[in-house]
Amino acid sequence: MDFSSKLLENAVNEMSQLPGIGKRTALRLVLHLLKQPTPQTEALAESLQQMRAKVNFCDNCHNISDNPLCEICASHNRNERIVCVVEDIRDVMAIEATSQYRGHYHVLGGKISPMDGIGPMDLNINSLVNKVKEGRVDEIIFALSSTMEGDTTNFYVFRQIEAYKVTTSTIARGISVGDELEYADEVTLGRSIVNRIPFENSLKNS
Amino acid sequence: MDFSSKLLENAVNEMSQLPGIGKRTALRLVLHLLKQPTPQTEALAESLQQMRAKVNFCDNCHNISDNPLCEICASHNRNERIVCVVEDIRDVMAIEATSQYRGHYHVLGGKISPMDGIGPMDLNINSLVNKVKEGRVDEIIFALSSTMEGDTTNFYVFRQIEAYKVTTSTIARGISVGDELEYADEVTLGRSIVNRIPFENSLKNS
Repeated sequence: MDFSSKLLENAVNEMSQLPGIGKRTALRLVLHLLKQPTPQTEALAESLQQMRAKVNFCDNCHNISDNPLCEICASHNRNERIVCVVEDIRDVMAIEATSQYRGHYHVLGGKISPMDGIGPMDLNINSLVNKVKEGRVDEIIFALSSTMEGDTTNFYVFRQIEAYKVTTSTIARGISVGDELEYADEVTLGRSIVNRIPFENSLKNS
Repeated sequence: MDFSSKLLENAVNEMSQLPGIGKRTALRLVLHLLKQPTPQTEALAESLQQMRAKVNFCDNCHNISDNPLCEICASHNRNERIVCVVEDIRDVMAIEATSQYRGHYHVLGGKISPMDGIGPMDLNINSLVNKVKEGRVDEIIFALSSTMEGDTTNFYVFRQIEAYKVTTSTIARGISVGDELEYADEVTLGRSIVNRIPFENSLKNS
């Protein structure tokens, strides 16, 4: 791509570093900004700079937070002895949106993935193990993606904490609510039969 | 969407102002930046600010340029008496990439589109008409999108300049090179038959 302006080229190159944004999309976004009044670009640039410079992670659960403790960890209405282990803050937001969970979280910051060069030391695993060691947790709920990396991470964390007195559970895998049975994959359908629940329980959340 | 941090929320909101970027995509992009070293976010923000603050449009053709005259208008190897009228700078880049055109351009900056509140006065039409009035142009090539708005704009500009001595042409519409005839739409196929060209001409560019 030949650009008629170095400034434009720089902006497009930086924009196309973002995941899923190619050169063409980057050019479209940048030209859009050029058509808008200057304050919009200023606001975008400043919000990114502010966020990167001042962002803070909760000391307890590693969720993104403006204070040393995030709102969830600081709340008195939540059970700090139940900890849901998730991959990143998007998962916290997704679970919070269900309004079904009143415990704490622990954000690992990723999954163990040797292919991407991410090992256990790159994740917030030690602080979780310490919480368990110190007897501050009754139950650990594993809520990672159901992929090979997710399962590996679950298992790694499980091995670290199994010596201590703590209940471990994992979120239920099964057919999505509203899904047709015939289109479900075999593994999911198989698991949903093996891990069937008493019928009365299924009435509670509906 | 409930955010655990105001800084994060601001960044996501600003990012989702961009066309085609929803809240979820914006969150993914912003979290990606947070995982990268600080300089990457700095570079992105600065390149956008620099571009917005210092960007300049060519005095002659309204293409984006770092100098008062863009490289194309400043070049002595191009025919300034042939002017290709395009919608925006992406079209200039697309035509330049073909290496088939050695004339000048004129970037209108959009199409006449009453639905979007864009009238002739919002586009760089007057400066084009003046070029023609002053006798500085031999041929005007219309290369706008083949849509209702593009045709309207073509026709509006044509009416402004038809009183003056200037050749007008429009880029050929027809079946794309490599396309199967049976999948072409009727309008395109019809036009390509009506506006057929001598067979020898088709050998020149292949």
